[in-house]
Amino acid sequence: ASGGKKPKPPPVTHYNLNNVTITPNPIENRENVLILTPMARFYQGYWDNLLKLSYPHELITLGFILPKNKEGNAATTELQKQITKTQKYSLEKDRFKSIIILRQDFEPPLSSQDEGERHKMQNQKARRSAMAKARNSLLFTTLGPATSWVLWLDGDIIETPPTLIQDLAMHDKPLITPNCFQRFYNPQKKAMDERPYDFNNWVDSPQAKELASKMGPDDILLEGYADMATYRLLMAKVFDEKSDRHEEIPLDGVGGTALLVKADVHRDGAMFPPFPFYHLIETEGFAKMARRLGWQATGLPNYKVYHYNE
Amino acid sequence: ASGGKKPKPPPVTHYNLNNVTITPNPIENRENVLILTPMARFYQGYWDNLLKLSYPHELITLGFILPKNKEGNAATTELQKQITKTQKYSLEKDRFKSIIILRQDFEPPLSSQDEGERHKMQNQKARRSAMAKARNSLLFTTLGPATSWVLWLDGDIIETPPTLIQDLAMHDKPLITPNCFQRFYNPQKKAMDERPYDFNNWVDSPQAKELASKMGPDDILLEGYADMATYRLLMAKVFDEKSDRHEEIPLDGVGGTALLVKADVHRDGAMFPPFPFYHLIETEGFAKMARRLGWQATGLPNYKVYHYNE
Ligand SMILES: Nc1nc2c(ncn2[C@@H]2O[C@H](COP(=O)(O)OP(=O)(O)O)[C@@H](O)[C@H]2O)c(=O)[nH]1
Ligand SMILES: Nc1nc2c(ncn2[C@@H]2O[C@H](COP(=O)(O)OP(=O)(O)O)[C@@H](O)[C@H]2O)c(=O)[nH]1
Ligand SMILES: [Mn+2]
Ligand SMILES: [Mn+2]
Repeated sequence: ASGGKKPKPPPVTHYNLNNVTITPNPIENRENVLILTPMARFYQGYWDNLLKLSYPHELITLGFILPKNKEGNAATTELQKQITKTQKYSLEKDRFKSIIILRQDFEPPLSSQDEGERHKMQNQKARRSAMAKARNSLLFTTLGPATSWVLWLDGDIIETPPTLIQDLAMHDKPLITPNCFQRFYNPQKKAMDERPYDFNNWVDSPQAKELASKMGPDDILLEGYADMATYRLLMAKVFDEKSDRHEEIPLDGVGGTALLVKADVHRDGAMFPPFPFYHLIETEGFAKMARRLGWQATGLPNYKVYHYNE
Repeated sequence: ASGGKKPKPPPVTHYNLNNVTITPNPIENRENVLILTPMARFYQGYWDNLLKLSYPHELITLGFILPKNKEGNAATTELQKQITKTQKYSLEKDRFKSIIILRQDFEPPLSSQDEGERHKMQNQKARRSAMAKARNSLLFTTLGPATSWVLWLDGDIIETPPTLIQDLAMHDKPLITPNCFQRFYNPQKKAMDERPYDFNNWVDSPQAKELASKMGPDDILLEGYADMATYRLLMAKVFDEKSDRHEEIPLDGVGGTALLVKADVHRDGAMFPPFPFYHLIETEGFAKMARRLGWQATGLPNYKVYHYNE
């Protein structure tokens, strides 16, 4: 059908999923990590922190999904500028293996990404359902046969230890998350201070189960709202300066700010339910779905990462 | 870090999911189709039929997953022999865009793939849960940003119209399936005959809903077993020779023998639940999950494909 030159035979790729290892020593075993970030706004602090990760960049693929609105367009432009800088002009060791940028083909449900609007209780179901679909699109489209680990990292995480990936992988858990805090200026102390930020990492409670049992099939439980007292144990609240940084607790719900997942958990089918799943959605629903597949979530209450302060 | 020659800058791929069209005229619009086949045994009839599909092969990627047991090894060897023949030595127009073969990293739960053993009721939950995980592994690992359609095609489907993909896509439905029959020698008629094969394509019934409402949370409804009369309307039973081949009916459960899915349905998060989901698993659970995401399944009762007869 084509003219002149003989075409190359099309590629056949034979992958043995058994040969893709997922171990506590991922660097030694040259394991590929896929870092996935849904991004509504671009923060320079996120990118700078990403560049500082000491996991070999040649083993890291980055995947982004950005909404197709004005804010998303602006973020895409800024992101691409930084990507070009890193991939074209930086030292070879700083460059990532590959980068995929997706634009979301559905409208985000809220007109504003401001924190006040974003965190209103009545907006949560639509917002988090849209977020779940964005995460799923990103996941289904970028996960490849050679991926060992998926690190979910929100675009507003601006500070983590450079050894984040190795530190989490070391625990050899199917899904594991550090504690997400936020730095702020404390006017009482007249000094910088920090406070817990992510309330989606929790251990279930009898009260929350009771609330759920009385709900309609499409209702969802939300964490961090006074109207809905769940009495769940929040990992954010159990940070203890004096304890081991690598102390583990089992979790029933997780957030997505920084979450390391063995690729096999996703391959078994664990995704972010955009619909109520045991009255949970998005990342919290993901923890429940993983559990249904036999995988238990773990939290590290004393290992901290930091969220941007708007 | 490397010696001598300057490395190419690593790839950055920018995909706008809005630019990947999914239309009733997929050939005209050059839409990529991913054909996914879980395969425990290799049938030459499957491969020959695949080669006869008239959808442009340069737009088709094939993905296979085979179990890591003796039978799976044998099937892999035979499959690779045929792939080499097609991709290396056939006419250019016969070659597929690319081919991915995965080996399953878990043991299939049944020791035998024989039909008697395979279809025993008490074996169904473990068997179909393992099948669901195999389908999910295949899906999560192969779906790419440029995929418009996913055709699920079982490895024992040995006869379809060559225009299968175009014919199904024409309907512009999120998920659509033909009716799966089986040819056999009818000793009464002393001639070849055919009978319905796939009973997983169905319309729900009040009786089945009633049964489900009384079940424990981990129980599943199964179709085609006398002990569990569901009174569902089976698409297999409503074939009508005299009616239009393109007649549509809405379905609540689907099988996976031949099932065309818009890639966006999967991207939203629709997968094959390996756990009971509304008392359904695997392909039937998939139809329910798609429905929860807002996507309705369609069946074509008078459009036939044929299953191998062991
Ligand atoms: N693609 C996409 N990303 C979003 C959308 N909304 C928020 N994000 C990103 O998703 C992550 C989590 O959302 P965020 O609003 O920060 O959640 P919060 O910190 O819990 O309030 C952040 O990286 C956001 O930039 C959206 O509609 N589409
Ligand atoms: N990868 C994989 N494929 C399987 C396994 N069991 C069956 N299959 C394939 O999955 C498809 C559907 O299974 P099959 O046993 O034919 O289902 P049935 O026709 O409903 O009895 C066929 O293509 C099988 O070859 C398994 O354990 N692993
Ligand atoms: Mn945030
Ligand atoms: Mn079959």
